[in-house]
Amino acid sequence: MTQYSTFDAYFREHRERHLQELTDFLRIPSISALSEHKEDMTTAANWLVDSFKQAGLENVSIDATDGHPVVYGDWLHAEGKPTILVYGHYDVQPVDPLELWETPPFEATVRDNKLYARGASDDKGQVFMHIKAVEALMKSFGKLPVNVKFMIEGEEEVGSPNLEKYIEENKQKLASDIIVISDTGMVGPGKPAVLYGLRGLAGVQIDVKGAKGDLHSGLYGGAVQNALHALAHILGSFRDAEGTIQVEGFYDNVRELSDDERAAFAAIPFDEQQVKDELQVDALFGEKGFTYYEQTWARPTLEVNGMHGGFSGEGIKTVLPNEASAKISCRLVPDQDPDEIVDKLKAHIAKHTLPGVTVEVTEFDKGKPFIAPFDHPAIQAASRSYEKVYETPTSFIRGGGSIPIVAAFDQILQVPVVLMGFGLDTENFHAPNEHFHLENFDQGLRVLADYYFEIEQSL
Amino acid sequence: MTQYSTFDAYFREHRERHLQELTDFLRIPSISALSEHKEDMTTAANWLVDSFKQAGLENVSIDATDGHPVVYGDWLHAEGKPTILVYGHYDVQPVDPLELWETPPFEATVRDNKLYARGASDDKGQVFMHIKAVEALMKSFGKLPVNVKFMIEGEEEVGSPNLEKYIEENKQKLASDIIVISDTGMVGPGKPAVLYGLRGLAGVQIDVKGAKGDLHSGLYGGAVQNALHALAHILGSFRDAEGTIQVEGFYDNVRELSDDERAAFAAIPFDEQQVKDELQVDALFGEKGFTYYEQTWARPTLEVNGMHGGFSGEGIKTVLPNEASAKISCRLVPDQDPDEIVDKLKAHIAKHTLPGVTVEVTEFDKGKPFIAPFDHPAIQAASRSYEKVYETPTSFIRGGGSIPIVAAFDQILQVPVVLMGFGLDTENFHAPNEHFHLENFDQGLRVLADYYFEIEQSL
Repeated sequence: MTQYSTFDAYFREHRERHLQELTDFLRIPSISALSEHKEDMTTAANWLVDSFKQAGLENVSIDATDGHPVVYGDWLHAEGKPTILVYGHYDVQPVDPLELWETPPFEATVRDNKLYARGASDDKGQVFMHIKAVEALMKSFGKLPVNVKFMIEGEEEVGSPNLEKYIEENKQKLASDIIVISDTGMVGPGKPAVLYGLRGLAGVQIDVKGAKGDLHSGLYGGAVQNALHALAHILGSFRDAEGTIQVEGFYDNVRELSDDERAAFAAIPFDEQQVKDELQVDALFGEKGFTYYEQTWARPTLEVNGMHGGFSGEGIKTVLPNEASAKISCRLVPDQDPDEIVDKLKAHIAKHTLPGVTVEVTEFDKGKPFIAPFDHPAIQAASRSYEKVYETPTSFIRGGGSIPIVAAFDQILQVPVVLMGFGLDTENFHAPNEHFHLENFDQGLRVLADYYFEIEQSL
Repeated sequence: MTQYSTFDAYFREHRERHLQELTDFLRIPSISALSEHKEDMTTAANWLVDSFKQAGLENVSIDATDGHPVVYGDWLHAEGKPTILVYGHYDVQPVDPLELWETPPFEATVRDNKLYARGASDDKGQVFMHIKAVEALMKSFGKLPVNVKFMIEGEEEVGSPNLEKYIEENKQKLASDIIVISDTGMVGPGKPAVLYGLRGLAGVQIDVKGAKGDLHSGLYGGAVQNALHALAHILGSFRDAEGTIQVEGFYDNVRELSDDERAAFAAIPFDEQQVKDELQVDALFGEKGFTYYEQTWARPTLEVNGMHGGFSGEGIKTVLPNEASAKISCRLVPDQDPDEIVDKLKAHIAKHTLPGVTVEVTEFDKGKPFIAPFDHPAIQAASRSYEKVYETPTSFIRGGGSIPIVAAFDQILQVPVVLMGFGLDTENFHAPNEHFHLENFDQGLRVLADYYFEIEQSL
């Protein structure tokens, strides 16, 4: 049997057990943003420890940070061969609004060959695939063709606030030739892609405070500032009606797309009607003069992620609310600097604060945008492994999301980052009814297993 | 003993019991806006029945409507004498945000001679005073100097949607010479006032819907409309930075203040610094060219009462929310028509709806503004009763709040409405820590008891 047919047979034989194990992993509500889930984070980390050991990884440890821990494991017996550092995360997004989930977010359910659960795709499902790729090779061949290190963190969904420090402090332990991450998407069903760019992230919370308490709108209405109006005034000022961001200097350092990049993006199939149908909207919306891929991959954004204040019950309550708050976040592109952007946001908010209220701005953790050369051998190797399994050319794309730590890997460890993901844009990451197409689970396992052999040959 | 000293002694003797009974009344969470309190509404109505009977009222009944019932009772044995119809309400506002209450909203607590509880002032406390004024006269003299009818409803805080029909159907039963309502405020501590005008009310809920679900802001941000931005765009368009309402035609039918009215308002003491200190704001805010009293009594308003959408938990969630909603309400002045205003609001909202979302507008119940001649003998009689107890001149003012049914009384029953209230603007109606100054409870009981004798002499 060839190497390929050997691990292919292994994945086939163990599919049921693998899916059952993934279901167990997905059952743990490891929501890093909510402090009430602190214990679940530990449970998820312990689950990984067991899974690492089962796969044959060694030196497995739960490494404490100032936040949720990093789970580490390695196999380093391929002397003279390259070392791959696999990064992923075991934390997941919150699940509200819970009532919109068709099946409970932490009880994984298969419908129509898709696995529905929070984290099914982002990123527990894809982390799981890396572990199982190692397991398949170890059980089939008793060894791996290259050395491998796993570093799975628990704070990606809250901006990886402690990972940079961890990497700085563990440079030697994490030393590797390439970093591989599966936390991104493909171009479409059956269409694999390697990502060479990601957007960064910067966000703030805006808390508006008016009078000492809620007021009767009859008694005070007309003479006292309403915190909700003051907030709406700020939020309404961020973008014009066409979506162009009005924060002074926001676009100053945005790197323009090259003609080659625009051409490459234009070559990727895009069906506007299909996107509209999928999202159930009448119209898309965004900066004029840019295509959909340009808007979502290479242009920065500013989104209100939540805003709350005043009465939310049934019916009417004629109150003049004194408190309101909003969370906003920006997706940033090369060469925007998150710190500079936050300063500009603060200046904009101050400029648009109406009299009669005070506004407090709290910064969230930030992430730099990332861009890499896609002619590196490790990236080309990834495209070959994809093509072997999917039997179609691999696209080289950029991503609209942020993996804040990618830029830090790039800068601290100074090795190439290979972003080879198996998700699809339609899989409701960060939203109710997140799911993962099981054909990409199956094909992805084979791509990852094959990639170890490709790397052995390429580096 | 004079009549005055007789009932004065009665109130003194029974003060403890009266406060205990009021505490029992305030314990019932009769929140008309929230359907889970339906049973509490019945409990409050039954409480009134017992209290009416205890005071000596007759023909006591709970009159069904399509909503919460009206509680009726009368005493009609003063042959040839005028008849007073007392109107009030036993429903109260919701209590959220509950965490801002210093003591539980339905456990009345006295601090610093103020009674803290939801409804202490608006309007259970003042309804209670009317009942106890009757009780005092009945127990002291065995009869009343005039005939009296009580009509206490349970839907004032939700716009009295069923009371007009009730009045239309019970014109004969409710026939009277004047209507007396205590649901308004005084000019300040120790400074009584009779109100001759009230603002009306119109409000809508705005529900914005974007994509089929919340989206990942990295994947879709920049190309898909965000429901919160679309809502903020609408809300931010309602008023300019100085508070002038931008809805086309909004001010068309606003009756300008006469020079006499402006002079009368200007004569009422106003201490801006005191209001700012009380509310803990750095600056007041409102339409240029109008004083505080003009802004709050004679100018219309548009307030966002609540707005909600997206993530509200701790930290950051980089979601592109697909749903957002807001409730807005307008205080209206003569001669604005609530139906016309709602039409104008709808047109404004449609005009400011961004592409990529749909907006649904739901109307709330409306109330017309009210204005009355203040030279009527029943109004003058009220001012004399106030002056007898408070020993200071009574002001004639307008009110910023809405008692939507007042305009209907005026039109259907065609008798003068006397608005003699005992609240103070600082008492946090509709807000956490609502309270009632007990000196106005004590003095108010005497004013109301005296008023029966004044009416006997005046009409």
